[in-house]
Formats: sequence, C-alpha cells, structure tokens
Amino acid sequence: MSELRWDPLKRHWVIIAADRGRRPNDFFVEPKPTPMTSCPFCYGNEDKAPREIFAIRPSGPPDSPNWRVRVIPNKYPVLRVEGELKSRGHGLYDVMNGIGAHEIIIETPDHEKGMADLSVDELVDVLTAYRARLLDLRQDLRLRYMVLFKNYGVRAGASLSHSHSQLIAVPLVPPMTVTELHACREFFDVKGRCFMCDIIEFELRAGERIVREFPDYVVLAPFASCLPFELRLYPRFHSHEFSLLEDGQLAGLAVAMKDMLLRLREVLKNPAYNFIIHTAPSLLPRPGRPDFWSSIEYDFHWHIELVPRITEIAGFEWGSGFHINSVPPEDAAAFLRGVSL
Amino acid sequence: MSELRWDPLKRHWVIIAADRGRRPNDFFVEPKPTPMTSCPFCYGNEDKAPREIFAIRPSGPPDSPNWRVRVIPNKYPVLRVEGELKSRGHGLYDVMNGIGAHEIIIETPDHEKGMADLSVDELVDVLTAYRARLLDLRQDLRLRYMVLFKNYGVRAGASLSHSHSQLIAVPLVPPMTVTELHACREFFDVKGRCFMCDIIEFELRAGERIVREFPDYVVLAPFASCLPFELRLYPRFHSHEFSLLEDGQLAGLAVAMKDMLLRLREVLKNPAYNFIIHTAPSLLPRPGRPDFWSSIEYDFHWHIELVPRITEIAGFEWGSGFHINSVPPEDAAAFLRGVSL
Repeated sequence: MSELRWDPLKRHWVIIAADRGRRPNDFFVEPKPTPMTSCPFCYGNEDKAPREIFAIRPSGPPDSPNWRVRVIPNKYPVLRVEGELKSRGHGLYDVMNGIGAHEIIIETPDHEKGMADLSVDELVDVLTAYRARLLDLRQDLRLRYMVLFKNYGVRAGASLSHSHSQLIAVPLVPPMTVTELHACREFFDVKGRCFMCDIIEFELRAGERIVREFPDYVVLAPFASCLPFELRLYPRFHSHEFSLLEDGQLAGLAVAMKDMLLRLREVLKNPAYNFIIHTAPSLLPRPGRPDFWSSIEYDFHWHIELVPRITEIAGFEWGSGFHINSVPPEDAAAFLRGVSL
Repeated sequence: MSELRWDPLKRHWVIIAADRGRRPNDFFVEPKPTPMTSCPFCYGNEDKAPREIFAIRPSGPPDSPNWRVRVIPNKYPVLRVEGELKSRGHGLYDVMNGIGAHEIIIETPDHEKGMADLSVDELVDVLTAYRARLLDLRQDLRLRYMVLFKNYGVRAGASLSHSHSQLIAVPLVPPMTVTELHACREFFDVKGRCFMCDIIEFELRAGERIVREFPDYVVLAPFASCLPFELRLYPRFHSHEFSLLEDGQLAGLAVAMKDMLLRLREVLKNPAYNFIIHTAPSLLPRPGRPDFWSSIEYDFHWHIELVPRITEIAGFEWGSGFHINSVPPEDAAAFLRGVSL
C-alpha cells in the first residue's frame, strides 16, 4: 500500500507509491504511443480497463461501447479507496496510509482527437463528468481534497496518448491549495472581498495580460507566471467550488477552454501541457474537530491553471523554489491574442 | 532588465528574465551537443566566453589556457550585478529589480569528461572554486543568498554539454531555504540541538536509507524523497555554511561526491540530474534592520541535495505540491549500496 510521508525539513508530504515498486531498469523504457488496437481507452477494448465508475452514453449497459465520456479507476492507483485513514509518528517523521482515489476521465472514444479537437458539446460532456465525480467523491469524509488535472504529451507526464484527464482525491488539503486558501482568507478578513475577484478586476482594467474575455469567463497570463505561456482561466462571477457549477455555466466554460487550448496549440505548435482545476475543499460537515476551511465559500474562487511544458524545471528552480520565466506574461498574452481562430 | 514579481496568491517570487526575451519559435529548437571546436568552455576558446572572474591555473595570465577550473559570468544572466536594489508595489502585486549574479563554474577543460569522471584532486579544485565564489559574493550586501547548483543532461535543464555548475546570487532568501531555516530554528529553540544532526544520527541508526558512510560525510536517500533515487549528502560534523569549509574538509567531500555520482551513474545508466548546495544565508552584518537569520550558525546544517531527472513532474505535482515517488527510498538506497565500484 502507498503511504504519505512527512518531510519535517521541507515541511511537506510526499506520496511513496510502493505499489508501483519500480526497479531502475523500468526507467529506461522510452514511452511510445499506444496503438489503437491495444488502447484500453478505445471502443471495444472496455474489457482491457477496470470497470467504469461513471459514463455518459445514450443507451446500453455499463462497460459497453457507445459512451461519449467514461470514468474508470486508474489501473495503477497512487492512492486507494479501501481502508481506514490512519497516521502515526516514525522517529522524527510522520506516516499516513495512502487512502484516496485515483480515477481516469476518458474524454472521448476517438483515439486520435486531442482535447482541443473536441466540440463544445463534447467538452460539456467532459466537464459534466468532472462535476459528477467531484460531487460523488465529496461524500467520502476521509477525502479532504480532489485534484483534477490533465497531463498532455510525454513531457507533461502522460503515459497513454488517448485523451484523458485524471482525478486524485487526497486525505489532506494540498500545500499549494493551503497557501492560496490562506492568502484569500486573510485578504477577505481585512477587506471583506474575494481576493481573486479583485485580481480579475485589476487585470481586466490593465488589459495587457488578458488573452480573451468571454461573458462569464476570462483567460489571462498571470502577472508572476512561473513558466512561459502559463495561463489562468477564471470565472468572472464569484464561485468557490467547481462542482457547484450549473449546466448553463458549463457551456460557457467549454467555449473558453476550447479557445484557450486552440490558441496555445497554434502559438506553441501543439505543446505538452498540464492543467489543474483549483477549487475549494469539499464543504460537507465532518464529525470531530471543525474544519478551518468550512466557510471558504466567501473567500476562495475556483480557477484553472494551465502550464505548457516547453522548458525544463532545472536545479535552480528545484532547489530554491524561485522560478525563472524567459517570456514576460505581457508578451505571452500578446502572442496568444494575435491568433485568429 | 529582469525583475522579480510577487505572486500574492501562491505567495512566492518569480524571476521574469525579460533580457532573454524569447519568441515562441525559440522553444522548438532541439538542444544538441556543442561540438568541441565552438564550445566556449574549451581550451583555446576562452575568447568565445566572457572574461573570467576566477580560475585555478598553475601559471599564465587570466583568460589564457592551462586552467584547471574557470569561473565566468553567464553570457545570458538571469540577474545582473549592476544597479541598486529597489522594490515597489504594482497594484495588488510587488516588483523588485533583478539584482544578483549569475556565474558559470567550468569544472574541467576536458570537453568529454563528466563530473563523475573527475579525479578526487580535480573535484577538490571544483569545490575550491565554489568556496572562493561564495566567499567573494557574500561581500555584496545586496545579495542575500547564493544558490549553487548543477544541471546535468538535457532533461535536467543543461543547455551546454561541457561539464559545468552554476551560481545564482539572489537578493532574497529563497522560499525553500526559508522553510528549512524555520524548521531548523524552531527545533533548536525547543531542543537546543541541530535538527539535521538529529536526522543524521537517526538515519545512521536506522541504516536502511544509508547509501554510504564516510569518516566525515554520509550519503542517504531521504525518508520522504520526492523523486526516485533522490539523495542527500550531509557532513557528519555540524557546519552551517559550505563556504567556511577548510581545505582538509574539501578532500573528504570530494571523495563522497565522486562515490555518489558513480553509484548513480551505474544504477541509472548515466541519468540526467540536478544537485543543489543548501547552505545558510551569508552572515556578514548588514546595515539597517537586523537580519532574522543572523544567528543561524547554530541551527542550520549545510547539505547537498541530488535529484536524478528520470521522471516528469506532472500536473498533479505541479498543481498540488504533493510529489509521487514510485521508488521507496529504502529500495533506492539498497540498489545504490549494491554497486561495486
């Protein structure tokens, strides 16, 4: 079973996924595209993958073809649902057992389509699946946070080429989320306003980092972008939790996402990228000690972070925590705005 | 000029290196090994590189051949020495001008040798150059910290293949260093002992994560390793600042480093890697507000962090701050211990 280990010097948790126990030689295998015949995410190969958790299909039984979007457990999960959440000290360290969930959202039955190729309606299906899984997993009180992300391309960590996203539910609020939640809460405590609503307003007024405005969403290059062509997609209305979006709000989001992905593909020639949905921790009341985050609906604002993976994270960045970005976000936004779709 | 920009949500500084102002097409160039004839780090090509700052050579004037180790400014520096350190607010953000230094330590005149190929005497020369540059740069009171690191291999961010390390001096203590300094100080405040001395003792007793013990140094796989085969090299004696090492202490360090690099090369078949020297901030007294870190000699303990770059940092890690490591450090240490040199 995997375990989470606490580093008391770096002050963060690391997931040691011993289930995957790899030998040195396993790292020398060059990743290559999966052929369609053996792809576990393709129509007709449903039996090559674990049984589905969720699917959008017009008709037919679970695990049959003709689905539009399909969610399955990861065959090699980083964290597992089975078991009780326990933690213990270990000398100077701490250990927690690896409770969580690890799911794959197969975005399309089409082996050749990238996410940017999906129609707005197809993207709405994907977003609907995201929402359904987030709403379901928040029922499990052991899980404190759901990280919904996508790795596209080998350089971004994708091991299968068929278009998919992933959801990892973790028993702790992740460190980066904690930092953002604190920043937002402290701002709200002092000013009575959502920090990110202020940032969005500031950026819309400044204009130079805006890639594209939509009625309900905005895509921009953040002022302190860590990586070249890094982007954020924000809802312009205040909303703390992605999973509470209504159907009508998903369509506008799909339009904005498709536009963002197409512009990026055009300017950077189909780059590898990661995106991550940053949302508030689940709000269901829990037994025991009240949750510090239980009133976060006022001060957090969900958003999507997108990072193209066209440069390496080198020793300086890894060892210091400072990032070096050789493309000012104002330039990145101008290049992306310049694309005619 | 570069600038540092503060992200008030992620709460960190990013270096926007606008001097390097790259266009999208610049990212599509495949890196390839520099041929020896045009390599600016080779004998006889000294005029292709900036003028040297420091060198170890038996005889001859600066910028002539016959050096053993040579330090030059980076031709494309991330931060520059010229100018006054200033910071200002910018709406919701903060900006600081990019004052610092960016130097290259050319570890050997031999174009084909990797650091692991250097003799112990040659490695002592490299470490002597590190120390000399750290001692010199600490005289500049604008610089708060020196990040000494190495990128080996394209996957680790190296752009030139000739063996070299880098030193970036920054006007702020880096966020990861701040976290470690705080952890060490709080431990010392409560217990009156150095945290890392305790960790080293605990690990030596446990044994299972030790790769190799030397009289004055130890190489181990950290309990909460973020990446497969991650390593730490610690001095077994208490020492907070790398640059205060005496000549006799450099030789033992060179032996330990060579052993560590050779084992890694053997087990992972010459992997790309980064290493970073984590040391205490410079202790020279500064004018103005007393420095929080000015008594850090008791509670910090310098060490070298080494991370092989054989896996990608994917969306989950980037967006959450949790790392997933598929090789438990106990296994990594056993593989590395098993190498016969």
